[in-house]
Amino acid sequence: MGHKIRIAIVGYGNLGKGVEAAVDKNPDMELVAIFTRRGPEGVKVATDVPVYYFDDIFTMKNQIDVVVLCGGSATDLPVQTPKLAEHFNVIDSFDTHAKVPEHFEAVNNAAMAGSHVAIISVGWDPGLFSLNRLIGQAVLPEGRDYTFWGKGVSQGHSDAIRRIKGVVDARQYTIPVGSALQSVRACENPDLTTRQKHTRECFVVAEEGADLAAIENEIVTMPNYFADYDTTVHFISKEELERDHSGIPHGGVVIRSGKTGFDNGNNHVIEFSLKLDSNPQFTSSVLVAYARAAYRLGCEGAKGCKTVFDIAPAYLHPETPEELRKKIL
Amino acid sequence: MGHKIRIAIVGYGNLGKGVEAAVDKNPDMELVAIFTRRGPEGVKVATDVPVYYFDDIFTMKNQIDVVVLCGGSATDLPVQTPKLAEHFNVIDSFDTHAKVPEHFEAVNNAAMAGSHVAIISVGWDPGLFSLNRLIGQAVLPEGRDYTFWGKGVSQGHSDAIRRIKGVVDARQYTIPVGSALQSVRACENPDLTTRQKHTRECFVVAEEGADLAAIENEIVTMPNYFADYDTTVHFISKEELERDHSGIPHGGVVIRSGKTGFDNGNNHVIEFSLKLDSNPQFTSSVLVAYARAAYRLGCEGAKGCKTVFDIAPAYLHPETPEELRKKIL
Repeated sequence: MGHKIRIAIVGYGNLGKGVEAAVDKNPDMELVAIFTRRGPEGVKVATDVPVYYFDDIFTMKNQIDVVVLCGGSATDLPVQTPKLAEHFNVIDSFDTHAKVPEHFEAVNNAAMAGSHVAIISVGWDPGLFSLNRLIGQAVLPEGRDYTFWGKGVSQGHSDAIRRIKGVVDARQYTIPVGSALQSVRACENPDLTTRQKHTRECFVVAEEGADLAAIENEIVTMPNYFADYDTTVHFISKEELERDHSGIPHGGVVIRSGKTGFDNGNNHVIEFSLKLDSNPQFTSSVLVAYARAAYRLGCEGAKGCKTVFDIAPAYLHPETPEELRKKIL
Repeated sequence: MGHKIRIAIVGYGNLGKGVEAAVDKNPDMELVAIFTRRGPEGVKVATDVPVYYFDDIFTMKNQIDVVVLCGGSATDLPVQTPKLAEHFNVIDSFDTHAKVPEHFEAVNNAAMAGSHVAIISVGWDPGLFSLNRLIGQAVLPEGRDYTFWGKGVSQGHSDAIRRIKGVVDARQYTIPVGSALQSVRACENPDLTTRQKHTRECFVVAEEGADLAAIENEIVTMPNYFADYDTTVHFISKEELERDHSGIPHGGVVIRSGKTGFDNGNNHVIEFSLKLDSNPQFTSSVLVAYARAAYRLGCEGAKGCKTVFDIAPAYLHPETPEELRKKIL
């Protein structure tokens, strides 16, 4: 092995902080720089890694092996990932499922032009969950997929509640319906409506004197976010919210239930589940493992945009293929 | 897409029968022949596929894309896989973990010499379980692995009981210890002895007048197989064995429990589990998915021996990378 894999972070929110911590757990990697739009003055990092303005990254092309992009999917990544893929090997966690094909196309063009490796949509969903959907379908062609999310905090839904008049702060949990999960695990192959799969539980801090009934009604009837779900609203104090709901847990389950045999006589259930104390720290850990793959593929001369579907698992692990076959096959 | 992927089966026990049924579930594949040492007279197959003597396979090199080897790991595969890898793309389910490196070496030499692709040790353990051990370690470097097997039938342990004097037939189930699983899932990272991880339950048909106490004692004290486990023995009738224990169910769980954050403040649990009505039919289904990968890799000019660690997941699924990104990423 030559030098350590030199990682740079772009964007220093929860995800960027998670990558900073995750690199520290991988002895074959080192964090060389963090880049943000706010620049060094606006950011206090956990390690002694230098912080630079975003635009400075293009002056450091020889000092970085892989850039891990930690911005948001709505506006940051569609611009940043193609822009950087022309100059660096990059990883992002682009998670707007419907826009994956166009993001792939833009990133692929840039990465091909610059002869770099880009891996997009890395994390757990999309990411490890996607991988398990693929494997489940490939192994059991006659079967059904189910994905459940939670119990976990949905930032999007929490934000939607915060925008309601009279709300000071809020935290929303997505919760899988136990009986639906049970039916899927029992190979009953149920048809499940949105309402039958998940419930939503909201913890809301209201302004003093706010109309609580009106807030609750606005939440539970909100189109797209809550109207199609059974939603419970709890009003609590700011202190309770901080004490009991400051974490960002998440998780979920991907299940493939399928049949084999000429008579479809045998049922099989493949289940992959995650129980995460910190959604951003776990996502960061997945990003860092795939950063190793991007580096290795780049060293082999690969180029273009890839997803978790295109990465042979051995590229993710620090040990050699020989060691992996001997120890964990 | 050109012609269907032409699959041949070598060996027609439970696994070969499972492959015959699994190919039928994959519209992009067709089964072209089954080869056995007994030849066509000794074998009655489920479909109308032709059966030939093993040695005839070498006359059919232009009619077969991938050979799926369905023999045993003890004596069949160490000979057959290298022999066939020189002439065909091959898949096997070699499962003697300790001998994987030497099997890999022999198969790799043959496959390189013949410019073919061989994928060994495919199934669920080794196979999908190995994949999840690798991913768990790569994503959560600070953590612990646990593998539990069952509830399921162990053929090796059932056979060991059948060899005892006075035993007519037997079926042995391996069962994970619930409290151990619970402790692992709760991130307690327990150190577990063999006895603390699994129990063994045996259903035994004894000869009339046999010394049941002696049989039971011989089972529970048998070195390697039972002495290190808490073992329960039930004597039942031949009819009960056939009625209640004729299936070959199996399954198990791979868990990675790990920590993230500079202070190791967050716990995460990655869990992959299988619940299988038929161990051989599921293993066959995995073999067939990897046969697709072997074919595609062969078409790309790849050669040599590979394991599940070396196969990018997209190769397993019949749809194109574009479709996969659009539908299941």
